[in-house]
Amino acid sequence: RSGEMAKLTQLIDNEVFRAYATYATIVLLKMMLMSLITAYFRITRKAFVNPEDTASFGKGESAKKYLRTDPDVERVRRGHLNDLENIVPFLGIGLLYALSGPEVSTALLHFRIFTGARIAHTFAYLIPLPQPGRGLSWAVAYSVTISMAYKVLKTAFYL
Amino acid sequence: RSGEMAKLTQLIDNEVFRAYATYATIVLLKMMLMSLITAYFRITRKAFVNPEDTASFGKGESAKKYLRTDPDVERVRRGHLNDLENIVPFLGIGLLYALSGPEVSTALLHFRIFTGARIAHTFAYLIPLPQPGRGLSWAVAYSVTISMAYKVLKTAFYL
Amino acid sequence: RSGEMAKLTQLIDNEVFRAYATYATIVLLKMMLMSLITAYFRITRKAFVNPEDTASFGKGESAKKYLRTDPDVERVRRGHLNDLENIVPFLGIGLLYALSGPEVSTALLHFRIFTGARIAHTFAYLIPLPQPGRGLSWAVAYSVTISMAYKVLKTAFYL
Repeated sequence: RSGEMAKLTQLIDNEVFRAYATYATIVLLKMMLMSLITAYFRITRKAFVNPEDTASFGKGESAKKYLRTDPDVERVRRGHLNDLENIVPFLGIGLLYALSGPEVSTALLHFRIFTGARIAHTFAYLIPLPQPGRGLSWAVAYSVTISMAYKVLKTAFYL
Repeated sequence: RSGEMAKLTQLIDNEVFRAYATYATIVLLKMMLMSLITAYFRITRKAFVNPEDTASFGKGESAKKYLRTDPDVERVRRGHLNDLENIVPFLGIGLLYALSGPEVSTALLHFRIFTGARIAHTFAYLIPLPQPGRGLSWAVAYSVTISMAYKVLKTAFYL
Repeated sequence: RSGEMAKLTQLIDNEVFRAYATYATIVLLKMMLMSLITAYFRITRKAFVNPEDTASFGKGESAKKYLRTDPDVERVRRGHLNDLENIVPFLGIGLLYALSGPEVSTALLHFRIFTGARIAHTFAYLIPLPQPGRGLSWAVAYSVTISMAYKVLKTAFYL
């Protein structure tokens, strides 16, 4: 089956597809980082949601007081959910866009702006920066995804 | 590298793949619309969750009263999360299904029913329609995804 | 267009890609099961969130008392969200990994451990098992995704 494998390798040899693979992976790793930041704040703020997670603090009331919400934890969780809401469309539409035959330079522009804007969004959310910092970074990444969706529909439209 | 690009373009020239690209993009754009509807309700109902988002309403207590939950905002947010829970499986399983060599007409039937059902689900959730309107539209889209998963496993099974 | 279709079928004939298709579908079906478990607990615990869902229990106060949160429902919902946060990266990075030309045996190892760990995570969350059961199963699946991301970036890096 080395012939088929070669064909697959050709896909990953395509420059636009390689750029998509790189930026999609970076932005997914950034999203995965939110889980670690949530865990960090849960442990340092001692704010848990599952009773079994507080068992190491003892039994009864002494452990129960750590079953609480914390503003910092909730903030990271909102950033994480916002990532899901925006990175899922990028993954799907971006893949189809990469397969729709865009110019390498145009594709790179889309992928770089999206990735930069989502990283900026995370900083704006977690620091937090005053508005419209977070709003603008969100809108830029959103617009890039719309632009890619337009190209996909123009190239592939088959209803 | 124009030879490789040609191969990629062939992928997007395949009718089933083009149909997948079209419907996946439509359903993702529909999901992205939920963000705008959430923002619309947050602004018109003056119901925010981040303190920095209410800074334009002044400082102290006058701004704090806008840090609250609103039933309409929460409803859109639930619809958005339900989209994520159901559109993510469609994206993944649908892509594999499109690559598993289905008849064009069968594939179109799956993609159209899923997309129609999810659009109906959004209307049922936001209006809201009496049950079982929302439940039925959810179940139809869910069943389409299961049907595609069955075809993928039948074609590709390699455990 | 049978020539193009043949090419697509070749993609799904590749062993690594077939393994990805199989495990991605299994793990997505597992995630979709969370919706059914949530519905089961909502109905048996009589704990709903949308007023229109309690209409069959009568009108006014008699129905309103079922608009409440239930610990079992919330637990399933947290497991579902954790699935989204971890399975979305697996879907995207795993697809790119499958296209990056790994050994079949290495790829199978990654897919099997990830899928097994996420199934274990669901059991650990829903039973619930004492920690670090849930934490470990989460960390194993997380590490597998990081390992695949490393391979993708090593093979495809194009910034």
